[in-house]
Amino acid sequence: MNLIDGKAISAQIKQEIAEEVANIKAAGGKTPHLAAVLVGHDGGSETYVAAKVKACEEVGFKSTLIRYEDDVTETELLACVERLNNDTDIDGFIVQLPLPKHISEDKITEAIDYRKDVDGFHPVNVGRMSLGLPCFLSATPSGIMELLKRYEIETKGKHCVILGRSNIVGKPAAVLMMQKGYPGDCTVTVCHSRTSNIKEMCLQADIIIAALGVPEFLKGDMVKEGTVVIDVGTTRVPSDKTKSGFRLAGDVAFDEVAPKCSYITPVPGGVGPMTIVSLMKNTLLAGKKVIY
Amino acid sequence: MNLIDGKAISAQIKQEIAEEVANIKAAGGKTPHLAAVLVGHDGGSETYVAAKVKACEEVGFKSTLIRYEDDVTETELLACVERLNNDTDIDGFIVQLPLPKHISEDKITEAIDYRKDVDGFHPVNVGRMSLGLPCFLSATPSGIMELLKRYEIETKGKHCVILGRSNIVGKPAAVLMMQKGYPGDCTVTVCHSRTSNIKEMCLQADIIIAALGVPEFLKGDMVKEGTVVIDVGTTRVPSDKTKSGFRLAGDVAFDEVAPKCSYITPVPGGVGPMTIVSLMKNTLLAGKKVIY
Repeated sequence: MNLIDGKAISAQIKQEIAEEVANIKAAGGKTPHLAAVLVGHDGGSETYVAAKVKACEEVGFKSTLIRYEDDVTETELLACVERLNNDTDIDGFIVQLPLPKHISEDKITEAIDYRKDVDGFHPVNVGRMSLGLPCFLSATPSGIMELLKRYEIETKGKHCVILGRSNIVGKPAAVLMMQKGYPGDCTVTVCHSRTSNIKEMCLQADIIIAALGVPEFLKGDMVKEGTVVIDVGTTRVPSDKTKSGFRLAGDVAFDEVAPKCSYITPVPGGVGPMTIVSLMKNTLLAGKKVIY
Repeated sequence: MNLIDGKAISAQIKQEIAEEVANIKAAGGKTPHLAAVLVGHDGGSETYVAAKVKACEEVGFKSTLIRYEDDVTETELLACVERLNNDTDIDGFIVQLPLPKHISEDKITEAIDYRKDVDGFHPVNVGRMSLGLPCFLSATPSGIMELLKRYEIETKGKHCVILGRSNIVGKPAAVLMMQKGYPGDCTVTVCHSRTSNIKEMCLQADIIIAALGVPEFLKGDMVKEGTVVIDVGTTRVPSDKTKSGFRLAGDVAFDEVAPKCSYITPVPGGVGPMTIVSLMKNTLLAGKKVIY
């Protein structure tokens, strides 16, 4: 069993990005600039945005944090998006989700200029990904592909079973894994809450991407010997072993499953650290204007 | 075994559209207007476009056919797209594919205003489909969904195996079949040229959508009793039984497979007739401005 070390890989990629940014600056080029819009004070969102700003510092990007209170109107937020769309110094920006209920997330996402949509959530980027055209890939599926590449895990002709059909993980991961080329060329099965025989499907898998958001869903008796397991789950569950009283639980019963795997990602320290690195990669691409 | 009669269903839907168009006109509304751009004189394209124009007449739409010779430049074609984008009388338009090699199909497709993209090929429509948002669905997957609906074929929790990963059939059909709701909620497996065990996969399927473009690929020993088989293949193969010297061959060895099926589409007369009807449906939606 090989542990896929997302923390080490993400550190390595940040280092690579930092070197490229240093070269750009040394050559008199523009410093990539990421803006993040944060509405309200949700604990998770605060943490994520802080980590993104910190990552920008680490790689040498300029970053701007724009805060609104929970009672910001949709009109105000749309005006902010419009300002950022037109701000030529800002290469890419994100609006941290979730948003308060009185604001349409779809409307905000679609208002973002897709050429600055470094989260890869805009329909143009989702569509271009599906069509195999250059685009901003969304963070989690992009991070998964990067892990497979860095560990040189074979995918061609393999059966990849994806648990979950969400817009931000399951569906894009399915498209990327079936796409021609590497990593890809997999036979892909997408299972979800309506699937009647998940265990049977998982037992056929060479690669499992677990993204249901159900702690320890994937048990030892659901995987065959030699499977590659990518655990995307990050559910906060109560714990008496941590100071906070919580721990992050993956979708995989790690202790049972790991011994049977050829490769497996831990939680935390697997896919998680890769997502912020994917955002940094997109911001660098946006700064270099290589996609649009 | 029940034969899925795409010809009858498509006639019925055309009738429904014609009635709605008559009502719109009677109420003083605008007649939906479809434009088709045809480059060159490819036999298949000529036939398809003629059929689309004829279908417009049948349902009461206005149609405009714009022809270019093979040597039209990309710049000229882009200018034509721009004119159609800005022509307020035209509700939707298509540029018939394939285009000559000196013209980028991606560039033309992306130049079309997605609000008039009744072929559903623009990245915005592809992306919105994936995200489950209202959009113009592309013709073939939309036709398949309509057949499943009209025959009230159960899909929830069923295993749908899709043969082929093309942008116009395999990938969108996969997304639609896994989406929440009806028809959908399937466990979906996408197989393709790199899949090592297609037979094994097909034998597990409750529903097979065959879209490889390989005549009679799906044999009798590859399907279990009671399977629903949707044959998207339409390859022209030589025949001594037709005047033209050719016949349309599906991806399914019909004579072997049909006896085992609960439902099956014939070729021709199955999915084929549905595609033009899907285009008419999109044009009606465009005319009514219900999506954008």
